[in-house]
Amino acid sequence: MKMTLELALKMIKKAEEKAQSINVPQIIAVVDAGGNLVAQHRMDGAILASIDISFKKAYTAVATKTPSHLLGAAAQVGGPLFGLNTTNNGKIVIFGGGYPVSDENGQVIGAIGVSGGSVEEDMACAEAGLAAIKS
Amino acid sequence: MKMTLELALKMIKKAEEKAQSINVPQIIAVVDAGGNLVAQHRMDGAILASIDISFKKAYTAVATKTPSHLLGAAAQVGGPLFGLNTTNNGKIVIFGGGYPVSDENGQVIGAIGVSGGSVEEDMACAEAGLAAIKS
Amino acid sequence: MKMTLELALKMIKKAEEKAQSINVPQIIAVVDAGGNLVAQHRMDGAILASIDISFKKAYTAVATKTPSHLLGAAAQVGGPLFGLNTTNNGKIVIFGGGYPVSDENGQVIGAIGVSGGSVEEDMACAEAGLAAIKS
Amino acid sequence: MKMTLELALKMIKKAEEKAQSINVPQIIAVVDAGGNLVAQHRMDGAILASIDISFKKAYTAVATKTPSHLLGAAAQVGGPLFGLNTTNNGKIVIFGGGYPVSDENGQVIGAIGVSGGSVEEDMACAEAGLAAIKS
Repeated sequence: MKMTLELALKMIKKAEEKAQSINVPQIIAVVDAGGNLVAQHRMDGAILASIDISFKKAYTAVATKTPSHLLGAAAQVGGPLFGLNTTNNGKIVIFGGGYPVSDENGQVIGAIGVSGGSVEEDMACAEAGLAAIKS
Repeated sequence: MKMTLELALKMIKKAEEKAQSINVPQIIAVVDAGGNLVAQHRMDGAILASIDISFKKAYTAVATKTPSHLLGAAAQVGGPLFGLNTTNNGKIVIFGGGYPVSDENGQVIGAIGVSGGSVEEDMACAEAGLAAIKS
Repeated sequence: MKMTLELALKMIKKAEEKAQSINVPQIIAVVDAGGNLVAQHRMDGAILASIDISFKKAYTAVATKTPSHLLGAAAQVGGPLFGLNTTNNGKIVIFGGGYPVSDENGQVIGAIGVSGGSVEEDMACAEAGLAAIKS
Repeated sequence: MKMTLELALKMIKKAEEKAQSINVPQIIAVVDAGGNLVAQHRMDGAILASIDISFKKAYTAVATKTPSHLLGAAAQVGGPLFGLNTTNNGKIVIFGGGYPVSDENGQVIGAIGVSGGSVEEDMACAEAGLAAIKS
């Protein structure tokens, strides 16, 4: 199973519905297994800084095969990966909202990244998008 | 009138339909009046280089209020703007496929950029997207 | 209401007057709602590093719709947005001196950023500039 | 004699008046002898691409002690400086609108750069700004 535009838009739609339900304009990005953008939507009113951050959360998740919030702990001062966020020319984001997308065999086929609200709101919307892949 | 996600997706849909009709997988980007991304779709099979190029065609069109193919002539060897494409940190693309989007009063509200095929194919798909704004 | 050069210069003038009154040469930048520069003044004797920082404080404020000093707390070690300042290709500044500018309806129409003194001095001058919009 | 904010604004004012008289919204930048920005104004309606280009024309003029239009010929295909515009991380602009500013002893103290119209219009406005230094 590979990431397709159709699948990416299905995930984005679910993330957008969640964002509307909590009244937070979000930006949602989906990348493929190579870390390359498949689709990105900026909801009206979403903050501009999140264009970059949503993509980089998705990039981070696929490039590390790890949800971005799990990297945060390891990249703290004193943590084993302190400084991680300045590698990859700044493409690594270490707070929540980026999740790898896996197929039914556990293969990572891409990732979703959401930015625009609090970290908790971003994670909730990204998880809503992720759920679309299972239905 | 301002660029919205709804309007951007309407334009992208028309550009995608044109791309399907000529059997060329395209990447389509729409930016707002400030040159910031609103939406971007990569059709399955589209070349990776066009992720960057489609966005930058749209950026170029809004940042110069000029279709990108018209810049090409002026930026040719011996032309008055030779060297234009190395300004703006490489964000200026001087071949066809980027068009400003104007509202009914002639105000530029954003731009569309298409990349993935020949310049003619890119221009045809971008123009199909542009036409959506008039209907 | 949109950011104009006239409005930007009015804000810059007030920020400069405050800077003169506290005897700190400042650099003041104003951006529009899209994060694009409208005007920037470097007072004689201001430190060179602040050319970049004043612009990026303004960019940060408009791109997050948040004064830059409020981001600092969230982006601290152990904070929910630790690592924020390495996103957006380093355009995010997380210390004080950047403020969004809103119109009478609460719409963000741009931002002001000041750099050159201590954070407190920068904030005081930026706030003086902000006040100009209300008169 | 050194470039000051007062002198930069005097030049910018004259360039703006010329721009208004020919009805072309321009962006005007002034740099000091170190190539660092002193002031920049974006007239309402000026194209976004010119924020970068106006600054870089000024930078180019002071960094080469040569008006930017004179570099164009040498940087053409087959010319002795072909490729000049990709040096300095793209900060060199090789079309007209950037001029060094010299004091009464012929010492270069800074530069002015104008972008927003045709090359001829940009040059005319920059020259109007330059003239301010002699009065």
